[in-house]
Amino acid sequence: MRTTTALALDGDATTVAPRSITRRELRPDDVAVRVDWCGVCHTDLHALRARQVGDPLLVPGHEATGTVLAVGAEVAEFAVGDVVAVGNIVDSCGECAMCRAGQQNWCAQFPTLTYGGTDRVDGTPTLGMWAGEVVVRASFVHPLPAGLDPAAAAPLLCAGATVWEPLRAAGVGPGSRVAVVGLGGLGHLAVKLAVALGAEVTVLSRTAGKADDARALGATALVTSTDERAMAAVADTFDLVVDTVAVPHDLGPLLRTVAVDGALCSLGDLGPVTVQIMDLLVGRKKLTSSGSAGLPATREMLQFCADHGVVADVEVLPAARVQQALDRLADGDVRYRFVLDTSALA
Amino acid sequence: MRTTTALALDGDATTVAPRSITRRELRPDDVAVRVDWCGVCHTDLHALRARQVGDPLLVPGHEATGTVLAVGAEVAEFAVGDVVAVGNIVDSCGECAMCRAGQQNWCAQFPTLTYGGTDRVDGTPTLGMWAGEVVVRASFVHPLPAGLDPAAAAPLLCAGATVWEPLRAAGVGPGSRVAVVGLGGLGHLAVKLAVALGAEVTVLSRTAGKADDARALGATALVTSTDERAMAAVADTFDLVVDTVAVPHDLGPLLRTVAVDGALCSLGDLGPVTVQIMDLLVGRKKLTSSGSAGLPATREMLQFCADHGVVADVEVLPAARVQQALDRLADGDVRYRFVLDTSALA
Repeated sequence: MRTTTALALDGDATTVAPRSITRRELRPDDVAVRVDWCGVCHTDLHALRARQVGDPLLVPGHEATGTVLAVGAEVAEFAVGDVVAVGNIVDSCGECAMCRAGQQNWCAQFPTLTYGGTDRVDGTPTLGMWAGEVVVRASFVHPLPAGLDPAAAAPLLCAGATVWEPLRAAGVGPGSRVAVVGLGGLGHLAVKLAVALGAEVTVLSRTAGKADDARALGATALVTSTDERAMAAVADTFDLVVDTVAVPHDLGPLLRTVAVDGALCSLGDLGPVTVQIMDLLVGRKKLTSSGSAGLPATREMLQFCADHGVVADVEVLPAARVQQALDRLADGDVRYRFVLDTSALA
Repeated sequence: MRTTTALALDGDATTVAPRSITRRELRPDDVAVRVDWCGVCHTDLHALRARQVGDPLLVPGHEATGTVLAVGAEVAEFAVGDVVAVGNIVDSCGECAMCRAGQQNWCAQFPTLTYGGTDRVDGTPTLGMWAGEVVVRASFVHPLPAGLDPAAAAPLLCAGATVWEPLRAAGVGPGSRVAVVGLGGLGHLAVKLAVALGAEVTVLSRTAGKADDARALGATALVTSTDERAMAAVADTFDLVVDTVAVPHDLGPLLRTVAVDGALCSLGDLGPVTVQIMDLLVGRKKLTSSGSAGLPATREMLQFCADHGVVADVEVLPAARVQQALDRLADGDVRYRFVLDTSALA
């Protein structure tokens, strides 16, 4: 077994702390990656809060960049020293219709999550990438295209992929009008990616004070979503509304800003949502959702980001200050993504 | 004023009966149409049931074909004797973004409905086409393309237009897989139109006994929607599910049959609908709706029907037997649309 240090929640602890963990010896199709940078996402916060005493060891971290330390006997794509990226899934069945269509994120047998999952070969629990090293099946490792800053690129693997998918599915490009609801980790990348795709982008936010931030990211305007007159002025306007708000909220006002044949894509796991059919009928509007991405779309997104100079706006903290990142994330005090420097764990 | 006979609900009557009504003298942009055939739609049944004593005179009928009797001074498109069709809207503002986009059915000032509306010029209530004659602004009259049987074409103006729009918006064509939920007035036309567009069509119905009917309309199969195993076998299958069921029902089982990036289009006015966001997220599925059609799409649909020999399967009754049509419609006893022969009213 390979040994490394991870930021873990274990036993009856209430905060993460460094501890030694093991990774499997490389199988022929595995790659060992030294984790250099790993993002801090709301999903990590939720997982930490949800863990109860008696639950297995939890190591968060599912959007990382790093350096190849070793490769299995059958791995041809990677060599020691390559800069690579790993996201929120590390395996899937590879045989179902979703996998064959490149949507491993929706594998019929459920994809193996980077943490909190179960390895498909040896049945061990998966542990995340707030760690010095990770061992991953090679096909779930992505080469990091040249030109991308590895620290700022780490959040692309989850936040970036998640907002890329709806933009790509809607065919966003020059002439498209896109609204982004919420200006956090996902939202700020949705703005940057939509702008890079050529769209005219508007931010919809409860906070009028974020207008300068929105413009700095490339948006042409910010509309205050609580201002009924301002919202009425953008009725039937947007080909795509990307809604990154992760707590339940009324989708009616957002649907009314969607253009004829356009779509509202809600990226938060809102559970059951209720809409008035008339808000869909008048304008043939669509309500949709999306979550993370398959392998081909993730690679496509990374290359697009390299080609267009898109990375996350990040605040880098050493791994030892992870609790500060978590506390400030819980308070919404981050522009726009914390990334942990995990070099001290390697 | 012009005088004609209509099937009307008036005063404290509880059933429709023939009575004399007036139509306006032709304005320069008007056409007078002798109504030859007019469909009996669930909307008519709802309107009759909803009318209360003291409400204005009600004349139903909003999907008709007929013959031009007279044209206003400025009307160049039509001549006396032309065979024409009139649907569920007879005017709109013509200036809003929806009207300019050819979606007069969603006019920002609300379109003038064929009955139960208010004429935009003289403020009089509109009366429908269960009548010997109707006077309509010429731009809301459609030439009936040669080759279409006028009786069987009448339901195209409402039922046909309503199902054409989602098929067209979804780009249905050869290679598309379409499911139609419910095999009534709308559903049977959805099957015929989707088949004519080149799609492979499946009917989803609670009634397994309709399988032969479905195949006779051109569907390749009927899946019993209450059979969980049968529904599981078509999970993630259909690019478009056209749901014609007009009473509230669980959309979850239908969403689960939609293919990746496909859509469920609900055509019933279901009011508020609740869906699980996960039923949209896994597969980036879309929930949408649609209602009637604008003028360009209606004309396009009529020409398509003429080119492909698509009309409704109708049961023609003389106008005097309208109550029989309404009673049987309420019982679901029609394959698939009643059409009134209104010649006795002219």
